Amino acid sequence: MKFYKKRTLPLLIGLTLGLGAASSAYSQESLQDVMKARGLTQKDLLAAAKTYTPTGGRDEYIAFSSGGQSGQVIVYGIPSMRILKYLAVFTPEPWQGYGFDDESKAVLAQGRIQGKDILYGDTHHPAFSETNGEYDGRYLFINDKANPRVAVIDLHDFETKQIVVNPFFKSEHGGAFVTGNTEYVMEATQYAAPFSEEFVPLEEFNEKYRGGLTYWKFDNQKGRIDMANSFTFELPPYSQDLSDAGKGPSEGWGFTNSFCTERYVGGIERGRPPFEAGCSQKDTDFLHVTNWKKAEELVKAGKVKQEKGMYLIPLEQAVAESLVYLIPEPKSPHGVDVSPDGTKIIVSGKLDTHTSVYSFEKIQKAIAEKNFEGTDPYGIPIINMKAALHKQVQLGLGPLHTQYDSKACVAYTSLYVDSMVAKWDYCEGKILDKLSIHYNIGHLVSMEGDSVSPDGKYLVSLNKLAIDRFNPVGPLHPQNHQLIDISGDQMQLLYDMPLPLGEPHYVVAIKADKLKPVVRYQSGWDSRSDSRSPYRTRAGREKIEKEGDTVHVYGTLIRSHITPEIIEVEEGDTVSLHFTNLERAEDETHGFALYGQNVNLSVEPGKTVSATFKAEKAGVYPYYCTEFCSALHLEMQGYLLVKPKGYQVAASGMQEGQAYTKADYEKQVKTNVDTQAVIDSVVAYITSHNYKDFSEVVALVEDATDQLGFASEAKKKAEEFAAKEDYQNATLWAGQHWQYQVKTADLGLRAKTFLEEHGATKIK
Amino acid sequence: MKFYKKRTLPLLIGLTLGLGAASSAYSQESLQDVMKARGLTQKDLLAAAKTYTPTGGRDEYIAFSSGGQSGQVIVYGIPSMRILKYLAVFTPEPWQGYGFDDESKAVLAQGRIQGKDILYGDTHHPAFSETNGEYDGRYLFINDKANPRVAVIDLHDFETKQIVVNPFFKSEHGGAFVTGNTEYVMEATQYAAPFSEEFVPLEEFNEKYRGGLTYWKFDNQKGRIDMANSFTFELPPYSQDLSDAGKGPSEGWGFTNSFCTERYVGGIERGRPPFEAGCSQKDTDFLHVTNWKKAEELVKAGKVKQEKGMYLIPLEQAVAESLVYLIPEPKSPHGVDVSPDGTKIIVSGKLDTHTSVYSFEKIQKAIAEKNFEGTDPYGIPIINMKAALHKQVQLGLGPLHTQYDSKACVAYTSLYVDSMVAKWDYCEGKILDKLSIHYNIGHLVSMEGDSVSPDGKYLVSLNKLAIDRFNPVGPLHPQNHQLIDISGDQMQLLYDMPLPLGEPHYVVAIKADKLKPVVRYQSGWDSRSDSRSPYRTRAGREKIEKEGDTVHVYGTLIRSHITPEIIEVEEGDTVSLHFTNLERAEDETHGFALYGQNVNLSVEPGKTVSATFKAEKAGVYPYYCTEFCSALHLEMQGYLLVKPKGYQVAASGMQEGQAYTKADYEKQVKTNVDTQAVIDSVVAYITSHNYKDFSEVVALVEDATDQLGFASEAKKKAEEFAAKEDYQNATLWAGQHWQYQVKTADLGLRAKTFLEEHGATKIK
Repeated sequence: MKFYKKRTLPLLIGLTLGLGAASSAYSQESLQDVMKARGLTQKDLLAAAKTYTPTGGRDEYIAFSSGGQSGQVIVYGIPSMRILKYLAVFTPEPWQGYGFDDESKAVLAQGRIQGKDILYGDTHHPAFSETNGEYDGRYLFINDKANPRVAVIDLHDFETKQIVVNPFFKSEHGGAFVTGNTEYVMEATQYAAPFSEEFVPLEEFNEKYRGGLTYWKFDNQKGRIDMANSFTFELPPYSQDLSDAGKGPSEGWGFTNSFCTERYVGGIERGRPPFEAGCSQKDTDFLHVTNWKKAEELVKAGKVKQEKGMYLIPLEQAVAESLVYLIPEPKSPHGVDVSPDGTKIIVSGKLDTHTSVYSFEKIQKAIAEKNFEGTDPYGIPIINMKAALHKQVQLGLGPLHTQYDSKACVAYTSLYVDSMVAKWDYCEGKILDKLSIHYNIGHLVSMEGDSVSPDGKYLVSLNKLAIDRFNPVGPLHPQNHQLIDISGDQMQLLYDMPLPLGEPHYVVAIKADKLKPVVRYQSGWDSRSDSRSPYRTRAGREKIEKEGDTVHVYGTLIRSHITPEIIEVEEGDTVSLHFTNLERAEDETHGFALYGQNVNLSVEPGKTVSATFKAEKAGVYPYYCTEFCSALHLEMQGYLLVKPKGYQVAASGMQEGQAYTKADYEKQVKTNVDTQAVIDSVVAYITSHNYKDFSEVVALVEDATDQLGFASEAKKKAEEFAAKEDYQNATLWAGQHWQYQVKTADLGLRAKTFLEEHGATKIK
Repeated sequence: MKFYKKRTLPLLIGLTLGLGAASSAYSQESLQDVMKARGLTQKDLLAAAKTYTPTGGRDEYIAFSSGGQSGQVIVYGIPSMRILKYLAVFTPEPWQGYGFDDESKAVLAQGRIQGKDILYGDTHHPAFSETNGEYDGRYLFINDKANPRVAVIDLHDFETKQIVVNPFFKSEHGGAFVTGNTEYVMEATQYAAPFSEEFVPLEEFNEKYRGGLTYWKFDNQKGRIDMANSFTFELPPYSQDLSDAGKGPSEGWGFTNSFCTERYVGGIERGRPPFEAGCSQKDTDFLHVTNWKKAEELVKAGKVKQEKGMYLIPLEQAVAESLVYLIPEPKSPHGVDVSPDGTKIIVSGKLDTHTSVYSFEKIQKAIAEKNFEGTDPYGIPIINMKAALHKQVQLGLGPLHTQYDSKACVAYTSLYVDSMVAKWDYCEGKILDKLSIHYNIGHLVSMEGDSVSPDGKYLVSLNKLAIDRFNPVGPLHPQNHQLIDISGDQMQLLYDMPLPLGEPHYVVAIKADKLKPVVRYQSGWDSRSDSRSPYRTRAGREKIEKEGDTVHVYGTLIRSHITPEIIEVEEGDTVSLHFTNLERAEDETHGFALYGQNVNLSVEPGKTVSATFKAEKAGVYPYYCTEFCSALHLEMQGYLLVKPKGYQVAASGMQEGQAYTKADYEKQVKTNVDTQAVIDSVVAYITSHNYKDFSEVVALVEDATDQLGFASEAKKKAEEFAAKEDYQNATLWAGQHWQYQVKTADLGLRAKTFLEEHGATKIK
């Protein structure tokens, strides 16, 4: 149904785009005609202008979204709302070779649960690394709810580098949240379970099932989580949920909310009311307040026991050392969000219409004065709710999460049941604006919204249901992220973006210019361990070596051939392929796919990757480059020949399918001379212009010069064979000379077009 | 680098949007200000207006793109260029539960190669099913280059239903292409290999390596490929490439091009020039012309031998029966495209500047007159090239693929090396327009461009390199699809779309209104076999049954609980979970994830899915719903308890974490009464308006009525327990009553908002 067709189109007199002769393609067409034909209102046109990003344009912010049960992270630009990349994290993904090459298999293997491969994740909350509470653009952390794990993604190359498994938890939802200088990454349980791996009957739920909160130590130097220096709080068997780390005055503290503090266990199949009834009975649940600075001191002082490879702080110790407090919070909260200045903590109870603003100062005062309502069944002091509250505000039905604006005291809270966003003043406790969204908003995110200095500007609403928003694509619908302009007094809906894969839960957004990813690796780089690969191979040094039962292939990839082109092994051999991409040019990725062996690699410029498999059956297995890298891409191929055990090659040589003569050689040489003339003219154009002022063109010229270097080598070989009157090989090498010329011409033409389109000037 | 900032912004006097009081949020902002701030030109604004699609709007065309080595199909809307869905085809994908539930595992298992699981595919060419040469919107076919396979996707639910493995090929590129009434799906080899699974040395390449072309029979009734009635042409060991089926006068014929007809085998590691040199030496390769109608008759007449489960037409038989001809075509072609009227076949040689237009009439005449240049080394007659040609046109450097316009004789050809699209007249042989794209275009697609009546209108350019077009995201770049307006005389670039996952090769685009996917399944549906699941379960009929060592769980999912909530099995048991989603509401998908067992399901409304695994270790394994389905989504949870062998449950019952009194019950009842008042007021609003005129609202009301029905049941239970003075259960059931009320209110409010936003009128 085209809802927008139902809108009334206001008269747009005077809006016709009168364009001059320079853009004659448009002269027949007015903006008004297009708007009328497409049913666009003035509001729509303004939204279009605020989001449309022309070719080559850049987005102002880059959003990193969890991918839900796709197990990935989704990267998109704001305000264009174009998805730039899916990052493979917990799920194997062949385009990236993730889970296919040996190096990334090793990362995934870190995430095994009790020895079992887990081939998906349920990613929920991404978090940027921070320096002094500001996003620093170095790392991204993401959790897996289904199998309590946290992954580290390096934003220098947008690759997953590490997965850690929580040794105590069987479920978590509240991760990842970082402390102000990325000292720790917080991860809290969701559904309580025994901390051991043993069976414990549900009858012992209250005594032996536990929640918890892990502070994963992050080694900022190495860029990896340091499990040995991480610590976990044992907590009561509530359903702990999201967390946030303190800032400024609240630095050193963490805040974790919870639901089902009723400790209810359902069992609808045996006549017990379901979890949803028993877990939402009490009017309040508990905000957990933890003192990580003090816990860290205890750990450093050797006062905390080690268990399962990290430190574990038992409940009794946490209480005895005053490391943990509870504060009542309204019914079944979803989000806990510390204000940018760190003075306030906002919590919404989804089954309450109130959003609660806690004051960190008041919390500290209550602790100091021991202003407690009592203790919970596990002895944790419960801070008097009223003593801790700054304000409670009725925002609407089903309040969930809060994000902050650049303007002081201004926040945005999602209202799930109302399907609205509320803009409000959390200092004064008053509503400033409300906006309907479609439908049922979960999280929301403002630009740099979790940092100490949010930019505000845009807000993205993560809607849980899309229903009729997009063209139908079957029973499983895309999610919908709606972009909202929050730069003015009133919120403006700008754009609906379908999410084509995965069910995002939360997004973080960073200023685009804080990210400085590389376009290539150092040559021979193992990107997963971030070190030079022992299997790196230089051009001309390709080799095949057998060690025991393993055949190691040290190969290279470059436009447009794979070296070696023929690999011979014996049935039963283990084959370990190692390929280095020799390219330096941006975006010159090569892929490698091999028939029937489940081998599929992505090899970006400079990278070295490996694939190890057993050649079980004798046969012929073609391989080829999977990335359309050049005009001769389809010819970038080879054969793995698996010979039967003990097979003796017949003495006969390779039969040529086509024989070449002196005339063929001379014809090819003539073509090459003509092609060189074209190249020379392009080179003349480039060098007569200020191409050095354009870094893109400089890169293309460097690449073209490389190709031309290869061309000379091939030419030399051709001439040597011709001198020996071996016209078969002379013709083929002359052909190869021409292939390098074609690649050079391709680059040269691209450089010339770039110069023409970007107003390069002639050097006088 | 923000290229668009370098553009000059023309003065836009008079373009200020003067908006009335009704839209005060915008009154302070002029279109001109936004354009200036974002560096947009008038051309950009027009492009924005042509592509921007407001909330709830619909796209005019739906594009289906191959996902390359991601193994998926990508669905996006045109002109909004928003990606709507990634369809899992050859690669397991957890969001869709693909490769995780037993039903989809069975589909993937069909694609095993020599008994081995292949966990990716290299998808290349999607094709729609056709009726009388028009896209009919029923099915989509897609091939896998790496492991010669073809998949069938049902567009009724956008799911992969079947994978067939080619029993002869070891590589293919030229699939899938359909005949005019979807009688057959064409698939041609790429790299020649023996048709047997045995090792054959490369020295016997010319004699024993083979290319081929399979015509897969499609059963239009069953919607599945019928292997037993499919046939394969044995062909020479050239690298056969893309195909296209004849239309109109050429109906009954197929056209397949090829490269490396030199039959060159590289070996750069042993001093032989690489494949790329030897495979591009000759000036011409061969267009293969096959008569499938005649071949079909031979098959039906029992004159073709059966092998490996289908029919195989040996080379000698194909020649003897005049089923195959060759025509020289310019150097290393990429695309072969039959014109909409079926009279012409256009082929471009990527290493030649000529694009060749063949006349089907002339081809037939040459065949009738035996106007042959000779035969190839395998005895296939070679039709005289000049006799078959209508025209040859110099379009530019690196011509690849051609697409057709709605205007007669107008075509668009991609120029890879020039990075341009040429619009030209293939009847007269003249160039009409050229447009630069960024960078290195491969395929291109016009709307319904492969059908007998293309719409033209838009063209998408599938660029192989993005380089600097988008914000950087590391060494591995997204691809770039550029949208071009071809409705006028000159082409206009409208939009750059990054492809965030996979390397698309080809796209087909269909009128959106031809697709009528369902939003739900019949209750208890196995979507992969398209039949009622033997494991379907109705509400209240959930059960756990042990058969031998297998525990079958017949469960259900509905907002917001999983039944059963507790599953108990013994260590060593095989557990077979079967879940039916009881929802009928659009977009009410539930997911199911289970800790540590690699179990992750997506269960759309009506679907029944299964997951079978061995409970190897005793322990506690939480499970939960992964799709944020409702306010109580987080509480939609349960536990799998794996007990040690022979474990005896202690007699003690479940300990309640929280005890409820009469006062608690009465408090809950009061809340429920208040909530009912809110529901009643919403119901009053809805029923006092013409809600029946809005199908969306009718669906919401039906869903709300269902929820309210559940609410009454819970209320009744609560009252029964209260009558027995069991206030524990009375309070919990009263709580459950309230949960249903919350769901009802959620739906009601959504319906009310919809009515308000869509101008519903009050019934008098």
